[in-house]
Amino acid sequence: MEHTLEELARVAGGTVDGDPTKKVRGARSLDAAGPEEIAFLDHAHRFKVVEGSNAGAFLVPLDTPPLTRPVIRVNEPLSSFIKVARLFQKAPAPRPVGIDHRAAVDPTAIIGERVVIHPFAVIGYKVEIGDDCEIHPGVVVSARSRIGRNCILHPHAVLYEDTVLGDRVVIHAGTVIGADGFGYRLVNKVHEKIPQLGNVEVGNDCEIGACTTVDRGTFGPTQLGAGSKIDNLVQVGHNCRIGANNLIVSQTGIAGSCTTGAYVVIAGQVGLADHVTLADGTVVGAKSGVMRNSQPGERLLGAPARPERDEKRILISLEKLPETIREVKRLTARHVAPNQLGEQGS
Amino acid sequence: MEHTLEELARVAGGTVDGDPTKKVRGARSLDAAGPEEIAFLDHAHRFKVVEGSNAGAFLVPLDTPPLTRPVIRVNEPLSSFIKVARLFQKAPAPRPVGIDHRAAVDPTAIIGERVVIHPFAVIGYKVEIGDDCEIHPGVVVSARSRIGRNCILHPHAVLYEDTVLGDRVVIHAGTVIGADGFGYRLVNKVHEKIPQLGNVEVGNDCEIGACTTVDRGTFGPTQLGAGSKIDNLVQVGHNCRIGANNLIVSQTGIAGSCTTGAYVVIAGQVGLADHVTLADGTVVGAKSGVMRNSQPGERLLGAPARPERDEKRILISLEKLPETIREVKRLTARHVAPNQLGEQGS
Amino acid sequence: MEHTLEELARVAGGTVDGDPTKKVRGARSLDAAGPEEIAFLDHAHRFKVVEGSNAGAFLVPLDTPPLTRPVIRVNEPLSSFIKVARLFQKAPAPRPVGIDHRAAVDPTAIIGERVVIHPFAVIGYKVEIGDDCEIHPGVVVSARSRIGRNCILHPHAVLYEDTVLGDRVVIHAGTVIGADGFGYRLVNKVHEKIPQLGNVEVGNDCEIGACTTVDRGTFGPTQLGAGSKIDNLVQVGHNCRIGANNLIVSQTGIAGSCTTGAYVVIAGQVGLADHVTLADGTVVGAKSGVMRNSQPGERLLGAPARPERDEKRILISLEKLPETIREVKRLTARHVAPNQLGEQGS
Repeated sequence: MEHTLEELARVAGGTVDGDPTKKVRGARSLDAAGPEEIAFLDHAHRFKVVEGSNAGAFLVPLDTPPLTRPVIRVNEPLSSFIKVARLFQKAPAPRPVGIDHRAAVDPTAIIGERVVIHPFAVIGYKVEIGDDCEIHPGVVVSARSRIGRNCILHPHAVLYEDTVLGDRVVIHAGTVIGADGFGYRLVNKVHEKIPQLGNVEVGNDCEIGACTTVDRGTFGPTQLGAGSKIDNLVQVGHNCRIGANNLIVSQTGIAGSCTTGAYVVIAGQVGLADHVTLADGTVVGAKSGVMRNSQPGERLLGAPARPERDEKRILISLEKLPETIREVKRLTARHVAPNQLGEQGS
Repeated sequence: MEHTLEELARVAGGTVDGDPTKKVRGARSLDAAGPEEIAFLDHAHRFKVVEGSNAGAFLVPLDTPPLTRPVIRVNEPLSSFIKVARLFQKAPAPRPVGIDHRAAVDPTAIIGERVVIHPFAVIGYKVEIGDDCEIHPGVVVSARSRIGRNCILHPHAVLYEDTVLGDRVVIHAGTVIGADGFGYRLVNKVHEKIPQLGNVEVGNDCEIGACTTVDRGTFGPTQLGAGSKIDNLVQVGHNCRIGANNLIVSQTGIAGSCTTGAYVVIAGQVGLADHVTLADGTVVGAKSGVMRNSQPGERLLGAPARPERDEKRILISLEKLPETIREVKRLTARHVAPNQLGEQGS
Repeated sequence: MEHTLEELARVAGGTVDGDPTKKVRGARSLDAAGPEEIAFLDHAHRFKVVEGSNAGAFLVPLDTPPLTRPVIRVNEPLSSFIKVARLFQKAPAPRPVGIDHRAAVDPTAIIGERVVIHPFAVIGYKVEIGDDCEIHPGVVVSARSRIGRNCILHPHAVLYEDTVLGDRVVIHAGTVIGADGFGYRLVNKVHEKIPQLGNVEVGNDCEIGACTTVDRGTFGPTQLGAGSKIDNLVQVGHNCRIGANNLIVSQTGIAGSCTTGAYVVIAGQVGLADHVTLADGTVVGAKSGVMRNSQPGERLLGAPARPERDEKRILISLEKLPETIREVKRLTARHVAPNQLGEQGS
């Protein structure tokens, strides 16, 4: 499969600088692309990295300075590159049709139109699956769960009983939705389990990464708002109510009964203590430990998390701490004499 | 399904304030319950939250002030609410009986009475499974593993060879018990693997969350003491000896050869360095990094972890650090004159 | 199965101190071994721990002081003990042969010689698997993935489309290779997914622990260099290029587009921000948060990570911080008088 720069420029909505008949056989990132492939430059001011790339051609922003290499100038390089890259994508593997005879589908389950169920998937008692879903190998959908339309469950995703997914939800491999929350109480020196009788409800257009866990609620639902995206290896505790359009990055842990507003962004390896509420638009920096509520749009950082500006001030101060301590010792030592003098003088 | 408050009060062991014939159709948490559902209040002093709830009735502590809403007064609201909530629980899905014909059970395996084995589970060579266990879809129990009575292995839990589980052990979905510990030694610039010839032994009444990993020992067992509970996404390294009745919260990592006493509590995202020993009743705060042993009942916090009181003092001091550094600069500046004077005078 | 000390000394390449006809029935760690088992001492200076062990005999370094217990003196106790321990290992479970009839192997897949495929494994469209591989139960190898020779994929490992594994690669249970990277852009208030069109390439002799996730690249490969070892529950983001012979410990998260050189060691629970480059031989301490590039052989510690020496100095200073702040207050208070005096005097 090959395309000329002229053809690609048409797809990309741009103009060619250089030989428009030059042939391209693939589209890859700047560092991975070879002489027969096209790459893209995200920002004009980084134009020098083009020289270090082996790519044969480049999609670049309109305002990029003149370059010696063949380029296609476009308004939005990433958007255009996605279109170009799709041209070169390998044809997808032939998609199987219908329910594989090696899947275990309970006779009480209700399966929509054009649903694909792969081998060794298990669809439980009274489960409902909407139209156009794809259920990959080894997925387990437990009793009474309801899945909307156009959802994709990747291999070995597990939904415990009564899980509800909206439309267009994507769940990646190995992720577990609806396992019991971590709730015990000490009775006669035994950690007695508090039954976890709630469920998990995932809104429309959510995507959940691989090996992530979202626990079921204790006496109500754990909720994930529409349009929110969760990365790999994240923990969402029981009774949480994650708002709409959140971004939660890998290895973050959200303890029980937390609430987040809309458009909250939580970076990687963050921890939220239980019952924390983050207002709309809160941004939490990586590795923070959040133990208090936030204001709308607030930026938090650190463990325990503070307003980002305060935390940064402390981090800068820490650099000076060893020298400051030495200086205090010097001050104390010097001080003894004049001070004693002062005391004698009083 | 519906019950009157009078009926619920009998189950809950309490007394009704309000109309005892009022009908309730479900039991959910304060924030999730609707007008036809009952919720519960855990502490009397939080009585004002009742006003903000849409629930139709409330289980409340005996000493709660008079409320305008229908309540049932009980001694222990949580305990009573669990009983009430169970009344409203959906009938469980019909439990399958025996070994599904789509499971792969080795002919040398010994399976107890009333064991349920779901489709696509794999039971290996000479495995032993005690009475009344439930082995969910896709679970893999590798060669020579022994499982006690009344255990539940949720979907896709994996036991490597020679794993031993006690009675009443619950393992949630996607958890891996007995994978190789992370042991290599550099020989001629190659990371040569140290064979991991031990196993994992899990005591009675342990519960292990989803997507957690417990590595097999190198030349002996990795052990988890009876009654201990481990949350999701926790790592327990090779050769660890976790004591009885521990609570280990999500995303904590315990490096190799650590030992914990009884009733140790480790909060979320904590790390223990290898060979650390925590004495009985130690409590480690969230996100701590523990690099030293603890005393019985000691509370540790911070990375590196210190006695909680010391760490809190440091955390408070950090708030004052930027101002302190400015003050030291002022002192130094002011000091130059009198001090130089002093030196001249000496 | 039992062996005399004389027999074991021959296998271990050492000499017996004590009764050479003494019989041993197993080999376990110092704390786990009983009177009929042999254990080993790694360093001569730790010789006192031998007295606290119940083991019946010990492999010890040549320079260990005389002990009252039966020992075999050897040059390298760990190497010798591995040989001895293997003598006592249980016979492995009989290895099945060929492709189990319950596996789902696409007719277009190309399977090498002597490959074992267990029940419920799924081998997709045009997958290639090299000679002598073992594919455990429930493993999913998606379309067009290529696996080299002598690889082991443990239960439920998942390879997404187009994954490439070298020779002698081991992937532990529940690990997911090639799920989509976490890439979105906000368009009209919607987090629009950036398609993840790359793949993952794993070099020869890599071992990847359990429940780890390695995301596919966006427009190119995510790469793992030959001989690198990754522990459990690690996240490797899209477009990363991990070098050769790295060691990456449990629960570490590496954000997108990071690059590491050869022989980099990253301890547990570390986070790398995106686009960070670590030079050859860099060592990152546990729980660090790395936000900058490193020099060859540099040791980093802390969050944000600094040269280890600087961070340790700060950590020591922190211990003194509360007292320092009190001292500064005292200095300020005392200073008021003489200083005012000084100002009056000037």
